[in-house]
Amino acid sequence: MDSATLKNHYLDYISCLNRRQTDLSAFVHDDLIYNSKSMSRKEYQDLIAYWAGVIPDQRYDVDILVVADSRVACRINFACTPVREMMGLAPTGRKIQFSEHVFYRFEDGKIKEVWSLIDKEAITAQLS
Amino acid sequence: MDSATLKNHYLDYISCLNRRQTDLSAFVHDDLIYNSKSMSRKEYQDLIAYWAGVIPDQRYDVDILVVADSRVACRINFACTPVREMMGLAPTGRKIQFSEHVFYRFEDGKIKEVWSLIDKEAITAQLS
Repeated sequence: MDSATLKNHYLDYISCLNRRQTDLSAFVHDDLIYNSKSMSRKEYQDLIAYWAGVIPDQRYDVDILVVADSRVACRINFACTPVREMMGLAPTGRKIQFSEHVFYRFEDGKIKEVWSLIDKEAITAQLS
Repeated sequence: MDSATLKNHYLDYISCLNRRQTDLSAFVHDDLIYNSKSMSRKEYQDLIAYWAGVIPDQRYDVDILVVADSRVACRINFACTPVREMMGLAPTGRKIQFSEHVFYRFEDGKIKEVWSLIDKEAITAQLS
């Protein structure tokens, strides 16, 4: 998969997340590494579904996308309203804004490794 | 600057940081945007020098590097020993490990914008 194809494939993946598609088998390997931990695709899907439950209006807004070889790096912005406790903090009913900086390694066109950092400081400041 | 050249140029920048070179004018514009804030190169250099004072053995270890067009995305690992207070937490004398996920936009071969997230959760867990 060349970089242009991988870029479009990744944007399709983001669209699926925003449509709340639960089956990510077209984009994610059966097993992957997520922040150094082994995880099945089902566990990965469950993690994404968990966050969609905490933040029903969560929308993945691609801000910066860098793709080369089998690597994708993305800065994703969120402007959304938690309705359940998030990182130990109760929802306020107000919209919060934060970013995720995430790196992926694709293998045969599917995500095999993910390293994600979320701006928890921004979240804490807005929910406290 | 093509992607291969930009990649090498960025790695030269990292080498300069690891050599504690204080003048970054070969790599950074006179003015830049750092996490949405306007900053002069001197302020950017001062910020880097501040962290080198807090963590004298800080070494930028490039883990993942994705370069395309004028964009650089890098996951940088650190294994280092704070000697001064860091994010409100006193040093313990022990080495800590954490990562930074950072995106840059280069303009005419020099950094014009930076978006950086640091794994503060990991730092807090290790210093508490």
